[in-house]
Amino acid sequence: MRMRNNPRAVEQLERRSKWLISKGEEPNDLRKHLETERAIHLELGTGKGRFLAQMAIANPDIWYVGAELRKEVLLSAVRKAERMNLSNCRYIWANINQIEEWFVPGSVDGIYLNFSDPWPKHRHRKRRLTHPNFLKKYRELLTPDGWIQFRTDNEKLFEFSLNAFLEEGFRVRNVRLDWHSHPDSEGVARTEYEEKFARKGQRIHQLTAFVPK
Amino acid sequence: MRMRNNPRAVEQLERRSKWLISKGEEPNDLRKHLETERAIHLELGTGKGRFLAQMAIANPDIWYVGAELRKEVLLSAVRKAERMNLSNCRYIWANINQIEEWFVPGSVDGIYLNFSDPWPKHRHRKRRLTHPNFLKKYRELLTPDGWIQFRTDNEKLFEFSLNAFLEEGFRVRNVRLDWHSHPDSEGVARTEYEEKFARKGQRIHQLTAFVPK
Repeated sequence: MRMRNNPRAVEQLERRSKWLISKGEEPNDLRKHLETERAIHLELGTGKGRFLAQMAIANPDIWYVGAELRKEVLLSAVRKAERMNLSNCRYIWANINQIEEWFVPGSVDGIYLNFSDPWPKHRHRKRRLTHPNFLKKYRELLTPDGWIQFRTDNEKLFEFSLNAFLEEGFRVRNVRLDWHSHPDSEGVARTEYEEKFARKGQRIHQLTAFVPK
Repeated sequence: MRMRNNPRAVEQLERRSKWLISKGEEPNDLRKHLETERAIHLELGTGKGRFLAQMAIANPDIWYVGAELRKEVLLSAVRKAERMNLSNCRYIWANINQIEEWFVPGSVDGIYLNFSDPWPKHRHRKRRLTHPNFLKKYRELLTPDGWIQFRTDNEKLFEFSLNAFLEEGFRVRNVRLDWHSHPDSEGVARTEYEEKFARKGQRIHQLTAFVPK
């Protein structure tokens, strides 16, 4: 998602710090930080935050945390939360490469990966957010009943990711090669990208991976 | 595969009985029957037998058994083996529904399911050869290190099958959404159907499922 550089983005984010979780010396204990016993779901690469906001509205008993690297994009997500006056979501300005430095192990109940960058070139494969190196980090973050829901329109990335999850010993369920044609998809939150893809008739793939016991 | 009814098919098969394994009162102990310690691979729905024959030639140290329900089609496979003078393959005239009556448990090292009938209607789903009811039977037949390789051009069947394997607790590897574009596919045996599909540019899906330990 291309957005114009905004030299005031940091300042504008700081003014909305109530929506943000900041990175401390030590990883955050999310449950303590949010003072909650409720489920905490994390979206990695939250973009402009449409999916997270829809989920937060639909599920007021769940806490949502959106992680985004590009500050202008993050600002857009935070502004959306502000505008909608959402009370159950927070954002982090984070590089997913360092996600393990943000939260203590076992503190996240579910992770959403929506339309991650496919990094199609073989030499860039380690940048894919479903590369085994990342999956190992996510597994650490997740509770024993934790799960990862992965959605993409990119078939090559889907194939790569499915195999990566299986190789890393995750249990995979509900593999959908054409998610929008599945009855379960009705009314389920969609990202900005997803709407665009769907209108073009492109198929969306989805799977859910569970932490092995 | 439509073939003309051949009232003499049974007679013609009987004349080629050296290629056939017959169904006994009790399940066959394949290893004893074939007097072998070598690996035994079974193709369920072997059709006209092109895949099995190619595999038998490429892997003389492996025994191949092809199962086919339609006697005219089976005859075509057996005739091919005869013509090619293959020494490491056998055929059974079998209904896969009763496959467990054919062989003793743990007697098969690998199973091939190639381009099985997709049975697209929901009410026919139990006929799909990757329905959990079938997978349970296959698991019984397989050795502890056994595997099932499944290949199809039908995306819906592939999705159904992948989920069925995962739900039945199989470990799945090497999921290929476009098998022929994968470097590993080079030189690997193809079925008659597969060649036709490939020429039309249709994509072939493949996965390998392992018996869980």
